[in-house]
Amino acid sequence: MDQDPGFIAAVEEAKKGAAEGGVPIGAALVSKDGKILGRGHNMRVQKGSAILHAEMSALEQSGRLPASAYEGATMYTTLSPCDMCTGACVLYKVKRVVVGENQNFQGGEELLLNRGKELVVLDNAECKELMATFIKEKPELWNEDIAV
Amino acid sequence: MDQDPGFIAAVEEAKKGAAEGGVPIGAALVSKDGKILGRGHNMRVQKGSAILHAEMSALEQSGRLPASAYEGATMYTTLSPCDMCTGACVLYKVKRVVVGENQNFQGGEELLLNRGKELVVLDNAECKELMATFIKEKPELWNEDIAV
Repeated sequence: MDQDPGFIAAVEEAKKGAAEGGVPIGAALVSKDGKILGRGHNMRVQKGSAILHAEMSALEQSGRLPASAYEGATMYTTLSPCDMCTGACVLYKVKRVVVGENQNFQGGEELLLNRGKELVVLDNAECKELMATFIKEKPELWNEDIAV
Repeated sequence: MDQDPGFIAAVEEAKKGAAEGGVPIGAALVSKDGKILGRGHNMRVQKGSAILHAEMSALEQSGRLPASAYEGATMYTTLSPCDMCTGACVLYKVKRVVVGENQNFQGGEELLLNRGKELVVLDNAECKELMATFIKEKPELWNEDIAV
């Protein structure tokens, strides 16, 4: 699953975020038939945004869609989703959430499972390294992003 | 509490949304010392946005803030928050959520209570009327907004 186009897109987005000096988390929303509906990365630094986490960026880039477009969809994200992004996945009824890693942060995984989502944690080395480096270099920015 | 400046601002925002032909839900985020940090309304129609629900707009308009700014804060909203907006309130650790009404829609109230938030439901007649009229006039738009 590390080779799914959606996951590859999410990792590319995370690296873009890192290159921009932002929070290096990326995501991609993929329809049940494998089309990337939207992709994006955390924009806290780039847009001064409190809500554009990676998953939110991917949902926003997907644009206005009817509920049917999200049926059977997968949200790929490089890091375990926070409570906000978890809630967004629940609202839009995505079927599955594929998470790059949950070692550097674990968000709303229990809620996802309680709400019937499939959850896959890849424990991907590249995702772990990206986040670990970021948290070490910019702990205040990271704390701001997760409201700690 | 119907006369709290934060609630008045939320209702004003909902009316702006209605006047713009959008989803008539408004919100305001108020700090523990009573300052309105941000306010906004649903922007699905106006910006083609899948994530700018009223509460998200208010958080976004508040801008980048440290966790301390949200301590003791209240999110005022004209309608019971959906799962996404509930998750955002949990992420940012607002203390209290004041809801105009939950007759036309009931979102993540159980999660808010489970996560230790104070929840106040005003059962406000003006909020109920705004939403009931909207849902009657534009059921497809409303269904899209809550992914039904």
